[in-house]
Amino acid sequence: MIITLTTDFGARDGYAGAIKGVIASRAPRATVFDISHEIPSFDIAHAAFVLFTAAPFYPPGTVHVAVIDPGVGGARRGVVVVGRQHLFVGPDNGVFTPFLDEAAAVHELADPDLWLGHAAATFHGRDLFAPTAVHLAQGLAPADCGPTVAEPVRLPAWNVEREGDALVAAVVHVDGFGNAITGLSTERLAELGEGSYAATIAGHEPIAVRRTYADADSGQLLALIGSTGLLELAVREGSAAAQLGLQRGDAVRFVRMD
Amino acid sequence: MIITLTTDFGARDGYAGAIKGVIASRAPRATVFDISHEIPSFDIAHAAFVLFTAAPFYPPGTVHVAVIDPGVGGARRGVVVVGRQHLFVGPDNGVFTPFLDEAAAVHELADPDLWLGHAAATFHGRDLFAPTAVHLAQGLAPADCGPTVAEPVRLPAWNVEREGDALVAAVVHVDGFGNAITGLSTERLAELGEGSYAATIAGHEPIAVRRTYADADSGQLLALIGSTGLLELAVREGSAAAQLGLQRGDAVRFVRMD
Amino acid sequence: MIITLTTDFGARDGYAGAIKGVIASRAPRATVFDISHEIPSFDIAHAAFVLFTAAPFYPPGTVHVAVIDPGVGGARRGVVVVGRQHLFVGPDNGVFTPFLDEAAAVHELADPDLWLGHAAATFHGRDLFAPTAVHLAQGLAPADCGPTVAEPVRLPAWNVEREGDALVAAVVHVDGFGNAITGLSTERLAELGEGSYAATIAGHEPIAVRRTYADADSGQLLALIGSTGLLELAVREGSAAAQLGLQRGDAVRFVRMD
Repeated sequence: MIITLTTDFGARDGYAGAIKGVIASRAPRATVFDISHEIPSFDIAHAAFVLFTAAPFYPPGTVHVAVIDPGVGGARRGVVVVGRQHLFVGPDNGVFTPFLDEAAAVHELADPDLWLGHAAATFHGRDLFAPTAVHLAQGLAPADCGPTVAEPVRLPAWNVEREGDALVAAVVHVDGFGNAITGLSTERLAELGEGSYAATIAGHEPIAVRRTYADADSGQLLALIGSTGLLELAVREGSAAAQLGLQRGDAVRFVRMD
Repeated sequence: MIITLTTDFGARDGYAGAIKGVIASRAPRATVFDISHEIPSFDIAHAAFVLFTAAPFYPPGTVHVAVIDPGVGGARRGVVVVGRQHLFVGPDNGVFTPFLDEAAAVHELADPDLWLGHAAATFHGRDLFAPTAVHLAQGLAPADCGPTVAEPVRLPAWNVEREGDALVAAVVHVDGFGNAITGLSTERLAELGEGSYAATIAGHEPIAVRRTYADADSGQLLALIGSTGLLELAVREGSAAAQLGLQRGDAVRFVRMD
Repeated sequence: MIITLTTDFGARDGYAGAIKGVIASRAPRATVFDISHEIPSFDIAHAAFVLFTAAPFYPPGTVHVAVIDPGVGGARRGVVVVGRQHLFVGPDNGVFTPFLDEAAAVHELADPDLWLGHAAATFHGRDLFAPTAVHLAQGLAPADCGPTVAEPVRLPAWNVEREGDALVAAVVHVDGFGNAITGLSTERLAELGEGSYAATIAGHEPIAVRRTYADADSGQLLALIGSTGLLELAVREGSAAAQLGLQRGDAVRFVRMD
């Protein structure tokens, strides 16, 4: 039984430790993996990307808990997303966007009997999501958590548009190395036909898509299919985001070069 | 067998990793949970608060190791605190203050046979506290660690004073979101009688105690019973500590509003 | 089965979480310990020191994975280092220097059948090192990973030279407290004969080697045998590196004082 945690609690406070305690108390044999507790505060889009890069590598049946939750205690729902092989438990605020297209169902967390008795209005991670995740990991059917959510909240991102001969994507994430990762997958890139490709950004020379960092010199810009399976802009031993002035949401066009 | 770790070692050095190795070597079946390794250096009061918020959620029998230890190698004692359901192992410097009132006993760590053979004078976390925690988790009686400590070191904090119609507490912690958490518990607040309450801080309007963040507008100050069970000052999607200029130790008065 | 992780991925991204997922998927009963994911980007020497301080404390048979890998996807080899009791898996870039002198063998990772099917050119940590570590932890012979590496890459550090009556070492690490740790071990120090010792740094008074931090006053410089077994310069409750202007690689002479 594996439960992962992704939060914006940071490591200086005891919040993440409390969640792990709740899981350990209710499921002493569970294995808990920290994916990240350093999501920037309230940064739902960042957490969605981190989950996209890490969650699929866990074994079938893993329950992923995400607590990036500026609306805690308000009207926003808690949900369990039933993905292809995993379950995702957290707020219905878009943090699970990358998994919604392939999700079999989304259920609201509506049964207080599944929560901690003294559930705090301000800490659903500890009092609702963690105990619910334990119940699910122990075999509870997601449908028993509450009614179906027909239209879960989605982040207005990850969209890739065809514009003539180009595919227009956006930067969905800038990682710790300064790599600017777009929402364009290898599969979508193939729509442009076989050949060589380049990324174009307003005000810059086209940037060739290469196979690996090592194909570029130190300090040189390149585009490549990153380890996430998404097209990204990188600088060998440097920051592409800084060099190109790119931020999350900025458009990047991809074209075929012949 | 569960052992938790709370230290100021940070994640850039190998100290926390070494402690985990000592535990893994002596108790391969132990489950180790990191509560925090990002306690600010030497900040005993911060660690005490973090333990207060996280430790109680772990199952009975958990051994909590804390290594925030500016006096390491000097005269300060190592101790094991026998709490209601948990054991706490670390320096006798006040880090376990929140658990001392209800502790059944405190024992000095005085038996070198329980430590690593090559115990370093500068790293009691690895060489004394970790092996002692393993012994305790494996069933050693705390009294076998050494003599009773009659007056363990306490932090001069967490005190709440009644002054006429008010309760005067202090900020015991400012968390990563900028919430200013006081030492006033829900139980003590009830001493003021039933009704509505407000927090008063010199130079500011009274701040109403509300049920949840969502009862306030974005950027608005509120007081609420936080997830720790303590009264705290918060700003929805903002920093109360920054907005009010509050630091740890600053007084906050609570009064009833009719 | 224990696998440790040491990377420069930081905690804000999903890379470390993905590696843990790969391990959990292939070895559900493995215990994974994070030594550090906060190695400064591409800082191989820092990672080597962190491994030196932490890895030896893990039980025999532990597999240590290190991913500090600026040359990923290029010509640099992946290796498994067969230490006295442990295995080390990662890039052949010097990160395992402290363990090479006593290593029984070093083998190249040359068998793609041991890797993830979709191995990404940019993420050997997830796609080569993690699955290889699982195979090794499950009993694969290191020699089955690939041919022997006769001359693995070594960091030009950790050298200690005898110059007349002095031993000349270098700062190999500055830790989070500002302690400046040299490559001089207790064993080598004994070459100077029995007695008292001092560290000498150009432009500063000789600094006495003492037994413990507590032998010095707050703010006072001292040299001592640190918890790593190496001679280090420290300031009680302060930063020796800042006070002495010491950086990694700077020379420190040790002499006997009579």
